[in-house]
Amino acid sequence: PLCLCWALGPAAATAPNILLLLMDDMGWGDLGVFGQPSKETPNLDQMAAEGMLFLDFYTASPLCSPSRAALLTGRLPVRNGFYTTNGHARNAYTPQDIVGGIPDSELLLPELLKKAGYTNKIIGKWHLGHRPQFHPLRHGFDEWFGSPNCHFGPYDSRERPNIPVYRDWDMVGRYYEDFKIDLKTGEANLTQLYLQEALDFISKQQASQQPFFLYWAIDATHAPVYASKQFLGTSQRGLYGDAVKEIDDSIGKILKHLQQLGISENTFVFFTSDNGAALISAPKQGGSNGPFLCGKQTTFEGGMREPAIAWWPGHIPAGGVSHQLGSVMDLFSTSLSLAGVQPPSDRQIDGIDLLPVMLQGKLIDRPIFYYRGNELMAVRAGLYKAHYWTWSNSWEEHSKGIDFCPGQSVAGVTTHTQEEHTYLPLLFHLGRDPGEKYPLSFASDEYQRAVEHISGLVQQHKASLVPGQPQLNVCDQAVMNWSPPGCEKLGKCLKAPESDPKKCSWPH
Amino acid sequence: PLCLCWALGPAAATAPNILLLLMDDMGWGDLGVFGQPSKETPNLDQMAAEGMLFLDFYTASPLCSPSRAALLTGRLPVRNGFYTTNGHARNAYTPQDIVGGIPDSELLLPELLKKAGYTNKIIGKWHLGHRPQFHPLRHGFDEWFGSPNCHFGPYDSRERPNIPVYRDWDMVGRYYEDFKIDLKTGEANLTQLYLQEALDFISKQQASQQPFFLYWAIDATHAPVYASKQFLGTSQRGLYGDAVKEIDDSIGKILKHLQQLGISENTFVFFTSDNGAALISAPKQGGSNGPFLCGKQTTFEGGMREPAIAWWPGHIPAGGVSHQLGSVMDLFSTSLSLAGVQPPSDRQIDGIDLLPVMLQGKLIDRPIFYYRGNELMAVRAGLYKAHYWTWSNSWEEHSKGIDFCPGQSVAGVTTHTQEEHTYLPLLFHLGRDPGEKYPLSFASDEYQRAVEHISGLVQQHKASLVPGQPQLNVCDQAVMNWSPPGCEKLGKCLKAPESDPKKCSWPH
Repeated sequence: PLCLCWALGPAAATAPNILLLLMDDMGWGDLGVFGQPSKETPNLDQMAAEGMLFLDFYTASPLCSPSRAALLTGRLPVRNGFYTTNGHARNAYTPQDIVGGIPDSELLLPELLKKAGYTNKIIGKWHLGHRPQFHPLRHGFDEWFGSPNCHFGPYDSRERPNIPVYRDWDMVGRYYEDFKIDLKTGEANLTQLYLQEALDFISKQQASQQPFFLYWAIDATHAPVYASKQFLGTSQRGLYGDAVKEIDDSIGKILKHLQQLGISENTFVFFTSDNGAALISAPKQGGSNGPFLCGKQTTFEGGMREPAIAWWPGHIPAGGVSHQLGSVMDLFSTSLSLAGVQPPSDRQIDGIDLLPVMLQGKLIDRPIFYYRGNELMAVRAGLYKAHYWTWSNSWEEHSKGIDFCPGQSVAGVTTHTQEEHTYLPLLFHLGRDPGEKYPLSFASDEYQRAVEHISGLVQQHKASLVPGQPQLNVCDQAVMNWSPPGCEKLGKCLKAPESDPKKCSWPH
Repeated sequence: PLCLCWALGPAAATAPNILLLLMDDMGWGDLGVFGQPSKETPNLDQMAAEGMLFLDFYTASPLCSPSRAALLTGRLPVRNGFYTTNGHARNAYTPQDIVGGIPDSELLLPELLKKAGYTNKIIGKWHLGHRPQFHPLRHGFDEWFGSPNCHFGPYDSRERPNIPVYRDWDMVGRYYEDFKIDLKTGEANLTQLYLQEALDFISKQQASQQPFFLYWAIDATHAPVYASKQFLGTSQRGLYGDAVKEIDDSIGKILKHLQQLGISENTFVFFTSDNGAALISAPKQGGSNGPFLCGKQTTFEGGMREPAIAWWPGHIPAGGVSHQLGSVMDLFSTSLSLAGVQPPSDRQIDGIDLLPVMLQGKLIDRPIFYYRGNELMAVRAGLYKAHYWTWSNSWEEHSKGIDFCPGQSVAGVTTHTQEEHTYLPLLFHLGRDPGEKYPLSFASDEYQRAVEHISGLVQQHKASLVPGQPQLNVCDQAVMNWSPPGCEKLGKCLKAPESDPKKCSWPH
């Protein structure tokens, strides 16, 4: 049976607001405080100075949809179904021809928070499926302004419809039609729209004295990268830096708004990103993973280690720095803890409550599992990381110019065939070698000790693993965003082709 | 004629103390404030928070001796003689069989400061020649505790003597004999000795009310890397990190000492390093250049961009960040400005006075010249960097395992043959592409404009260049540290072999 416990009375009265700032394809090395050489993020740097910096914080997948599903469920994608079995170790996501999405059986953070009196809003990218049954308002959110898929396009409305933008239940327009993105100049005012939505929602909630959960999942740093006119050309880093500057400015305004409304001490804010920088799009459309190896799509540090900052004035001490191994899935558990809600006890939750780390400076021993699709590629425990499989991408893809590790090449590590190391994992010490360049000698005592420890964790993990039904196997042109709810009012309904479900193709 | 102007009266009364903290092979990415993922430099991070961070600060050579000669003369090595013509574009330094050293015709910073009433001390590594005529006390320093060469060894005293450690004019012992370095454990207490020397000197000068120039040129982060017992094993980063932690701790103690003596507002402090991290020694004996390409010995950013912090409470505003293109040679000019001394007018000085940058937040337009030995390899102007020559090291060296760019490989850029690009320089935009991975298209307008501008700077630079007599061409076993002054008292004189001068061999 599903057991949920919450206290609506006193807990609701003191439960803080929760604001998750989730970036899209932003890398560990993109913030000044994490060593970006242009140092153009004064507001985020200030947020870190006033809060706690997490240096060893991870996503649960090097790709967007599974990462977001993990954040909102507190569970690894292999459990919540956000993976594919069409190929081995392939990253999958939710393009608009995907048939699957977040299963009803999954319990999402807003569903749980709602029952504790929270009003929940998602601003920006949902990415957990765009068919009606996957709509965020069917999974615990009360409000939505944003889109179900990436802002790719423009499309011709015949082969492929443009991506809709929703307000709550209904679409209010489409990208490139009603919500302009100028691919030539990179101009789009979407971040400003998302900023205003956040400020308005916060004001409304403050006035109504209801606790809120705001999931601000903006996407300006995902290709095609965009910025508002006033930010274009202002960065040393080109368009990508312009987008970062606009986001930094927006976050500064949001934090200031909380302070001006007098609710900053009652609002827990956490900043992070969904996966590593998309080096494949660099330098114009991609960010930086600092000193780490490779980027998005890979299970090297550059693909999965994320910038992360916690901010809660009066509670989290200013200027803290933590080496706690953290995960986006911890935001689920930590948020429930903040709200005084018990996590579901009928399923495995991978997230942990980080409040003892943030409030009392504790360090909790826990491993990090690096999955690519259906395969456990690597495991980190302490400062050691063992790779059980290595792969960047195939020779075939690489020969087309698709490079997840531009300018980087570590023999036997950034391999272009899927290399199994199950019986003799490649081991790195991430303290001495954060760039994963120098595997430890198999013959060393250090290797033996560390691998023995990690092997035990893997065994334990695999023994208790119940994979979810894979949601990202089937694609069908008929399910694309032809006629989203609300399209009639706008005269924006398009005719869907005949259904023709196929296995999705996942090359990476 | 040589014209020097200084004001001994009022200027001496108000001239601040000058403290240069020069690291050895420490990289841009080795400090927390510059994004090192272990973030183990709280004192340096605090120094940056209280002072000004320079993000675009450079050395004048990717190797130690020429870099140090440039710092102390304010002139490029190609002018002051710290280069070789034995091969094209070869880095040279001062091993103990080098015949040359700093020419008497060069005017060193301490010589100039001395005449303005400063007491000058060098603690640590001199590296401008070890024969009697090159002794630091013959070039303006009043005191010395340290050694003339790198702490390589141990040697057998027959083929090669161990490196002497001097106190002022005389040697007081040798490395590995009287000053222990345990190569197995990495233990050595040298940084503690250098720290105590600094604290004592500062106390003495404060008591005597004489302004001082202290050049704290410690070498714990140069291979063989070492740390004191109390720091061994304390870092996430292994021995290299232990050394960094000890240095960070020591600098914290020095700054605190200045504050406790009440002279922090009268002491200008600048922290930087002599060249990029020695990736060839990584991960155990080498540091990090953060997101930059390659390391020591190269003219890529990893070889020449340095961590840099200015600190002068009450004068330099706290928390400043500057994108001023700076150089170690600017420390010469800035120090003279602080002391109220005019720079020599009979020779070309490459340094500029950074006080307007630090005190008024100005930005001064000036190029950075990247030399390797006798060749101008690259030039930076604004955010553009043009490479006229590219080279990492030769295939022959590379095949021996000598790799200046481990894990990094950029086609046509990190070349293993010396590639000339004089007529069509490789151009990078360091804002969008700090890692020098994406050369701009030769056909673009942006390329044309930037290269035209930089070509003008190169022409101007070359037209006025008067190369000094190269000092690093001749080596002779007879000139090694067999019998340094003071050896008789210690019974440590060794017999020199017959003189047999030869061309030095510089493979890189």
